[in-house]
Amino acid sequence: MNLTPYLEHFGVAVSAVSGVLAARGKRVDLFGVTVLALVTAFGGGTIRDLCLGATPVFWVKAQGFVITAIVAALATFFTARWLTIPRKWFEPTDAIALAMFTIVGASKSLKFEAGGLIAVALGTMTGVAGGILRDVLLNEVPLVFRKDINLYATAAISGATVYVLMQHFLKQPLWSVAAGVAVILLMRLLAIRWEWRLPEFETGDGPPESSK
Amino acid sequence: MNLTPYLEHFGVAVSAVSGVLAARGKRVDLFGVTVLALVTAFGGGTIRDLCLGATPVFWVKAQGFVITAIVAALATFFTARWLTIPRKWFEPTDAIALAMFTIVGASKSLKFEAGGLIAVALGTMTGVAGGILRDVLLNEVPLVFRKDINLYATAAISGATVYVLMQHFLKQPLWSVAAGVAVILLMRLLAIRWEWRLPEFETGDGPPESSK
Amino acid sequence: MNLTPYLEHFGVAVSAVSGVLAARGKRVDLFGVTVLALVTAFGGGTIRDLCLGATPVFWVKAQGFVITAIVAALATFFTARWLTIPRKWFEPTDAIALAMFTIVGASKSLKFEAGGLIAVALGTMTGVAGGILRDVLLNEVPLVFRKDINLYATAAISGATVYVLMQHFLKQPLWSVAAGVAVILLMRLLAIRWEWRLPEFETGDGPPESSK
Repeated sequence: MNLTPYLEHFGVAVSAVSGVLAARGKRVDLFGVTVLALVTAFGGGTIRDLCLGATPVFWVKAQGFVITAIVAALATFFTARWLTIPRKWFEPTDAIALAMFTIVGASKSLKFEAGGLIAVALGTMTGVAGGILRDVLLNEVPLVFRKDINLYATAAISGATVYVLMQHFLKQPLWSVAAGVAVILLMRLLAIRWEWRLPEFETGDGPPESSK
Repeated sequence: MNLTPYLEHFGVAVSAVSGVLAARGKRVDLFGVTVLALVTAFGGGTIRDLCLGATPVFWVKAQGFVITAIVAALATFFTARWLTIPRKWFEPTDAIALAMFTIVGASKSLKFEAGGLIAVALGTMTGVAGGILRDVLLNEVPLVFRKDINLYATAAISGATVYVLMQHFLKQPLWSVAAGVAVILLMRLLAIRWEWRLPEFETGDGPPESSK
Repeated sequence: MNLTPYLEHFGVAVSAVSGVLAARGKRVDLFGVTVLALVTAFGGGTIRDLCLGATPVFWVKAQGFVITAIVAALATFFTARWLTIPRKWFEPTDAIALAMFTIVGASKSLKFEAGGLIAVALGTMTGVAGGILRDVLLNEVPLVFRKDINLYATAAISGATVYVLMQHFLKQPLWSVAAGVAVILLMRLLAIRWEWRLPEFETGDGPPESSK
């Protein structure tokens, strides 16, 4: 039995919920919430497909994903008033979606003959770009750029790197995928538990204002 | 006599004007205003074409639209100092542009073999994404995400749905287009008149912070 | 000896540095800084390639550029604490990158059979869109939209126009490139020196709120 499609729909639903929840306190209406859900769920994969030239992009060809995302968004919209999902529950769920999106993205990039470094970059983008777009739409500096996020993108980069290296040297898709996913999940959960962080950007005094 | 090209240039000009007017009070210069006009007029159609794989995108092949948008932007830039268009006049004009962009977008999507749900999504995107990009560039949460907008996107979704269904079952392009446009115009104008609104997103207390 | 690749890597590195420096005072971590560098360096060229249908986009096929950008970003991240580049030094360097990106962008557009006006638009986009995306990610109205920027985009538009016209009438690629680059450099440096500015958008009193 092939579990991949279920996992993909699960990842899309989790991302859509994350898009909706980010809108709390923002005076956004039902349409705004739906767009935020769709952008969070499909933003990363869309940019990846466009950069690779894999058009029409994946969700144009697979209406089912759009339905999953919209249903997840509507369900969250209407239940969030009464039902509060404890934060602790949501982070591991979100880590699974991150792992899945990232490795799917890196794998698709390799299939389109991207080099190893590019596959890592596009895999990471598949995992995190939806959330970046969501935060931009909500008028905030992306959460994933801040050290409080506990190695969110770093976990994705590490897992994608492990996946690409294993795939390059061993050519065992199943093991490569498993290792990549495991690295992302483990690193992310440990980072949340122990509050691991990347260093923040610090400057002496005011460096030049740039304009490119 | 074929009116479509005139209508399209009209829609582009109206959107460009809307892009310029959104910049008031924002300390944006002549270049910024021109970019805002172009992004508002072409943003939605560009994302649609990219997602469909319809490249080069439409305005690369049709310089005339770019000229129309730039002329409309410059005219607004230089006259806005003295001439104030009353709000009441602008909203029906903008509703016509919304209707036209949405139905053109849905129709092009069907031509590229997109499914019905995707055609509705891409049609709506053609109608509203330019304005979303404009607001993001001006550092604001998109106006179309707020309930004060009186069913702006909802009118587009409804009209696109009617168009796609009629086209699917009756296959009479002219009637389908007319019905789609009529639904958008009517719904939008009634919504403005009677201040119809979508429900806003409400949560109990602080739900989990999301990070995808 | 062909200098073009060196110049391109130089332009990418300068843009990446500009992306990093824009993040000061923004509480962005190492990952955020790297993304800002990549987006500033590759944003404009990516949008150009997508609109032209030139996929996979250029950096997917040229991993070397990505390495250059990441190395420049890391170097800036780790030295900015101690080393402050005086603003006066950075602006001419950035002007060279602007000139190079713009003319490369216009030239590629002509190769893809874009019309003259579109080549100017896409050339300018190649020069300035990376910086616009950078500012959007940092939650600011793009610097290039403000009159304080001293003809940044205007220099790009002028140089791209000169390049496209010369290429059209004289068909001497080398001279066209040289003239385009010279116009951008000269105009930008003079504008900085004499504080030339575009007019800012002014309105009477509150014009209509737009919503497209």
